[in-house]
Amino acid sequence: MTLAYQLIDFKNPVFLAYTLWSVTLALKMMYLSMHTAIFRFKNQTFANPEDGGRRNVHFNNEEVERVRRAHRNDMENILPAFLIGLLYVLIEPSTLSACLLFKIGAIARIIHTVVYAIVVIPQPARVLAFAIHYIITIYMGVSVLYHLF
Amino acid sequence: MTLAYQLIDFKNPVFLAYTLWSVTLALKMMYLSMHTAIFRFKNQTFANPEDGGRRNVHFNNEEVERVRRAHRNDMENILPAFLIGLLYVLIEPSTLSACLLFKIGAIARIIHTVVYAIVVIPQPARVLAFAIHYIITIYMGVSVLYHLF
Amino acid sequence: MTLAYQLIDFKNPVFLAYTLWSVTLALKMMYLSMHTAIFRFKNQTFANPEDGGRRNVHFNNEEVERVRRAHRNDMENILPAFLIGLLYVLIEPSTLSACLLFKIGAIARIIHTVVYAIVVIPQPARVLAFAIHYIITIYMGVSVLYHLF
Repeated sequence: MTLAYQLIDFKNPVFLAYTLWSVTLALKMMYLSMHTAIFRFKNQTFANPEDGGRRNVHFNNEEVERVRRAHRNDMENILPAFLIGLLYVLIEPSTLSACLLFKIGAIARIIHTVVYAIVVIPQPARVLAFAIHYIITIYMGVSVLYHLF
Repeated sequence: MTLAYQLIDFKNPVFLAYTLWSVTLALKMMYLSMHTAIFRFKNQTFANPEDGGRRNVHFNNEEVERVRRAHRNDMENILPAFLIGLLYVLIEPSTLSACLLFKIGAIARIIHTVVYAIVVIPQPARVLAFAIHYIITIYMGVSVLYHLF
Repeated sequence: MTLAYQLIDFKNPVFLAYTLWSVTLALKMMYLSMHTAIFRFKNQTFANPEDGGRRNVHFNNEEVERVRRAHRNDMENILPAFLIGLLYVLIEPSTLSACLLFKIGAIARIIHTVVYAIVVIPQPARVLAFAIHYIITIYMGVSVLYHLF
């Protein structure tokens, strides 16, 4: 029988899929910091008095706030999914479905960012992208809990 | 002597307690997204112009903001505790006390959410629930650092 | 050949450096909760009506908001770095450079907090501290992805 820690290896395709898609999402999430900075300069909108130098600065801008909401939504959803996903790997789920779930969930979050903060597309584009990743994460979390009993 | 990674197994009761309570907290935290959505519709208060459809929408509502503050507080406290807890498992703490700490910390955070965002109860209910989980997490973090030297 | 999970041990200096600096950053991040609370009482500024007791309370204060921005910036940057750093340990990087990167990245984030929320220092102090940790995290993330192919 496989011990849980033995699943933490890049030769395990489920752990490999977890690593690939989690790191991709982490990098995507960190990109939003740059995106916020770009929009701050474009709109001359800063969060701190010392950030604007000698220019006249503004402190609220809808375009900047939208990127920040997308970023916060990432923190709310992607960060707990990192833990849940890792523990899901350790319950040794079926390879095919686990790899697919990691992939679909990550692509959904990438689409979520695009339609929220880059090219604003009318609903339900964003809510659908949100829901796909959300449901997958809940499913993985419940599977882990179920495995423990 | 046990190597640290050998503790990552569901037959280790400390890792099992970590998994059980961390996943429970992660799911509880993700539930707050739904809770926010429910309160947004109830109060017709949305964050983005495209979210309200053709209705007249409002953009600030105290009930919605309260849930969002509870959610942010979760991110500030539960997410770093995921890492600290995992590393705490790896220093092979006493089984009984470690299992108890994970359980008490998690229940404190569940109470925190209830008294903050679901049934608002006067202080010090919330600050006590906050402090219990906070002190446990600091204790675990310091224990890990102490173990390294 | 070393299996990835075998690197999760305190006798591996890279994992030890990861643990030391990640837990330090997690504790530093959690300290900001206390720092916010101190500034809230100092400025009699609270987020919730029930928090101020019978005193007259205010609900916005620039000093408090600055600490909260520093805290949020920590969540945006330090939390994804916890995952990326752990997976970076598992690709067995060169010991010397990996230990150095964890150390420099963590010190940069400590400086970031100091110049943002404790002793406000004119730019580019904060943006430099931010950039050092940011670039190190991106580098580690890209290294992990590169390792998979």
